Amino acid sequence: GPVSTILRELRCVCLTTTPGIRPKMIAKVEVIAPGPQCSRVEVVATLKNKKEVCLDPENPVMKKVIQKILDSGRKTD
Amino acid sequence: GPVSTILRELRCVCLTTTPGIRPKMIAKVEVIAPGPQCSRVEVVATLKNKKEVCLDPENPVMKKVIQKILDSGRKTD
Repeated sequence: GPVSTILRELRCVCLTTTPGIRPKMIAKVEVIAPGPQCSRVEVVATLKNKKEVCLDPENPVMKKVIQKILDSGRKTD
Repeated sequence: GPVSTILRELRCVCLTTTPGIRPKMIAKVEVIAPGPQCSRVEVVATLKNKKEVCLDPENPVMKKVIQKILDSGRKTD
């Protein structure tokens, strides 16, 4: 909601990260660059079940997860 | 704001995509998987100047952009 959106802009979002999230479970991934609100990169995934989880940006699987989502809309001609 | 958040959940966000966006300009990238709201993958970048632009998920530069942001928080030991 709007309150969490405002809070989100003033501090780091992620306290812990959740392992074992597969691309199929994800509706949306937000990659947030370091900035005044937080000195770390943060990756927040919104799952299809509406839950939000933080993912570890240092995990090499992240690349694959994001790439899979990017590829998921691609039509094979 | 909250209204745009609600609207965003009911339809595709991106009508056009903006070329030439560099990783340094980006505060946040959202990668939105296809779903009931939109049959396409959508990539929405929030720039450091607070503007929101859509990026082309089919553009191979996208991978680099996202990877650069993921890498930006990495400490070199």
